[in-house]
Amino acid sequence: MRPIAALALVACARTTVVPPPAAPTTSTAVPEAPDSGAMALVRSLSDEAGPRLAGSRGDALAVAWAERTMRAMGFANVRAEPVRVPRWERGEERGAITEPFERPVVLTALGGSVATPPEGVQAELVEVDSLEAIDALDPARVAGRIVFVYRVMRAAEDGAGYGETVPVRVRSAARAARKGAAAVVIRSVGTGPQRIAHTGAMRYEDGVARIPAAALSAPDADAIHRLLAGGAAVRMRLQLGCRALPDADSANVVGEVPATRGDEGVVLLGAHLDSWDLGSGAIDDGAGAAIVLSAARAVRERVAERRRSVRVVLFANEENGLAGARAYAEAHRGELARHVAAAEADAGDGRVVSLGWAGDPAARPRFERLLRAVAPWGVRPDDEPAHGGADISPLVPHGVPRLSFGQDMTRYFDHHHTVSDTPAVVDPRALDQAVAVYTAALTELVTMDGDFGRAPVPPPEAHR
Amino acid sequence: MRPIAALALVACARTTVVPPPAAPTTSTAVPEAPDSGAMALVRSLSDEAGPRLAGSRGDALAVAWAERTMRAMGFANVRAEPVRVPRWERGEERGAITEPFERPVVLTALGGSVATPPEGVQAELVEVDSLEAIDALDPARVAGRIVFVYRVMRAAEDGAGYGETVPVRVRSAARAARKGAAAVVIRSVGTGPQRIAHTGAMRYEDGVARIPAAALSAPDADAIHRLLAGGAAVRMRLQLGCRALPDADSANVVGEVPATRGDEGVVLLGAHLDSWDLGSGAIDDGAGAAIVLSAARAVRERVAERRRSVRVVLFANEENGLAGARAYAEAHRGELARHVAAAEADAGDGRVVSLGWAGDPAARPRFERLLRAVAPWGVRPDDEPAHGGADISPLVPHGVPRLSFGQDMTRYFDHHHTVSDTPAVVDPRALDQAVAVYTAALTELVTMDGDFGRAPVPPPEAHR
Repeated sequence: MRPIAALALVACARTTVVPPPAAPTTSTAVPEAPDSGAMALVRSLSDEAGPRLAGSRGDALAVAWAERTMRAMGFANVRAEPVRVPRWERGEERGAITEPFERPVVLTALGGSVATPPEGVQAELVEVDSLEAIDALDPARVAGRIVFVYRVMRAAEDGAGYGETVPVRVRSAARAARKGAAAVVIRSVGTGPQRIAHTGAMRYEDGVARIPAAALSAPDADAIHRLLAGGAAVRMRLQLGCRALPDADSANVVGEVPATRGDEGVVLLGAHLDSWDLGSGAIDDGAGAAIVLSAARAVRERVAERRRSVRVVLFANEENGLAGARAYAEAHRGELARHVAAAEADAGDGRVVSLGWAGDPAARPRFERLLRAVAPWGVRPDDEPAHGGADISPLVPHGVPRLSFGQDMTRYFDHHHTVSDTPAVVDPRALDQAVAVYTAALTELVTMDGDFGRAPVPPPEAHR
Repeated sequence: MRPIAALALVACARTTVVPPPAAPTTSTAVPEAPDSGAMALVRSLSDEAGPRLAGSRGDALAVAWAERTMRAMGFANVRAEPVRVPRWERGEERGAITEPFERPVVLTALGGSVATPPEGVQAELVEVDSLEAIDALDPARVAGRIVFVYRVMRAAEDGAGYGETVPVRVRSAARAARKGAAAVVIRSVGTGPQRIAHTGAMRYEDGVARIPAAALSAPDADAIHRLLAGGAAVRMRLQLGCRALPDADSANVVGEVPATRGDEGVVLLGAHLDSWDLGSGAIDDGAGAAIVLSAARAVRERVAERRRSVRVVLFANEENGLAGARAYAEAHRGELARHVAAAEADAGDGRVVSLGWAGDPAARPRFERLLRAVAPWGVRPDDEPAHGGADISPLVPHGVPRLSFGQDMTRYFDHHHTVSDTPAVVDPRALDQAVAVYTAALTELVTMDGDFGRAPVPPPEAHR
């Protein structure tokens, strides 16, 4: 079936000669983008697959959804490329302050944490504000206690507060364990005043005790911080039922919009298919998947003369392992030299406000053309070298040129990695603007005369 | 101690002759209000008492907090007036869709609900959009099933969406039970896209089966609605561990700012001290308590010549019984004729945008003076007869004049009755504006020449 369907779609693409999308004509007023259908994709993925942490039943549903949806949207060469993924389950969890009074708190295990004993860990809190402050603690003060890392993340259009704060989430457990702590709790790495907890990946270190790690909702962390600041001794009970399971099968799902004139390489547009388990992965990363699928569909329908193919890759296991990204780079090692550009949409539903790149500096004029194509949508140049996204990172050592579509992330971290990551928090108008920007850029990428060459390969420690 | 302390405070009030607050001089630009200290009160009540449903340990902590705080703020005649209150506990609760797939949902029991059996109620959902639609259901379709009432509340400055939707919360269980339903779940009566569930009071009817009743978070209700609209049969498992307990002791906490010149009656400013159990009652009704306490303190400090006394009443059990309101009306029956005005602050932390009244129409010019006093803060007249608030309702049959301070409630129902009702969602600037408006009105009320007379008593069925 597959080759025939693919041929039919190519034929269809050739005969569907729709004029390119009318770019807005003035740069002074940014227009509203037309309905791209992206919101319907977000709802469909969230409803039909739901929470989909790597290796879970939802993850398998998502793979099936992606294959079905790509075929229905007219993609060619749709396939699920197998990926072996780690598996972790949350289980039951709860916490409470037990002194100076008994009161439940909202918390959630960090991804990868070990469980507590069934009766929980109950101990006094020791507050610090950074990893360095953990390192400076006297082990005598920490032994058997729960280290509470109170660090407030700031909201910012470029999401920079996340990078500033996320090391606390990733590394506090190992750092506190070195001092003899029984467990670690952090203020959620997120923004917004809601009493919901933000999960996300953490890592243990070899040779260091593995202690339970959880994130408190911001209001709970703030209240505990006030109690401690007022001189109270605060004790907490923490019960986490999470566990690691044997590795499982998942897949990267790939679909293509083939070139129609010549064969000048592959433009890779990625997003990730997995999500954290608390919400239904609407902004992270249903939105990204919807953006790249919709933009590729628009190019298939509207751009008849394509020198290059578009490859949409919905990666497995971005959230807790990057196994999908590594598997893609390995499986396609032989054709990475033909990857002329790669970008991942993994920044939610916000409007695209900036565009950056990494390529051969001699090809800068071609990037300038791209900038002119997206400028009418209110997109400004980003002068930082493009990273491209977590799932693109294994392509960096191969010199694959990258693009970074900078989305407005001011409110993204209000919902990301929480129970509230559902279609209800997605702004369909912003999503449509992002699709319009990706479509304009992709149109240029598949039609332009020449490409970005190869991107400089940074020294190994700068990868990811 | 108490009489001596009260005398000392009166003396203090007499000697603290601070000029009245400088009213803003232009009506075109609404000024920022000064820091009233109200935010600190909200934090202190939320942190020190926390969740405080009637009769709970938090409720007792709140009574102690109120007495302590009123004394520290310089109120006179501070006392806890005993109230016998109903008691209900939430216990453990959870829910999941079980078909067309297994997926947890966020829900919470409605206040007063009975429990499910420990293994839960598991049944197919039957969706309706109103109480009338429940009444129109064929019992054969409902018997043993779970009625799902899908009705979306709208956000509005005056909070009108709540009154339109809350009958669904209060009455769906009894209406569905009449048709033989096993349980009822509703879309949360609240606004906002967060995946949190809104609790609130519901009522059973005599002679009708008592079935479990819960509210689903809006995103969960929306997803189920989409599944049902797509033709799926949806089954749900609902486990509620809530229970009613014997009545318990609580109290209305009362404090006064005595008159300093003559004795022309009592101005009652109320708020409620209890809260739902999910959050820490910051906007509902820590904010209201902070507003009336702060306004009364400001008048004590700044208005030396007071013809009338101010009585702040922090009512018990507003959320699930109104026992405090009834106890106050009963205990003070003999002096209700001396209550020259009453108002309750129970609309959160929003800015005051309107002021309404109910009094002797002949006293309208005095209300107009009040309007002029608050107009510089951006307050417009409200022409509807003032209700005054739930805790004021037992005073209505006694002809006590009421004031309604209409606050901006556009975002109030995003948080109200949820886990997210914490100090983190309170806007200190808006709260200070509300204090400034209450202070301006209260200044006029304790100093004006003459009063509002008696308010018309509406026919009994219009009470509450």
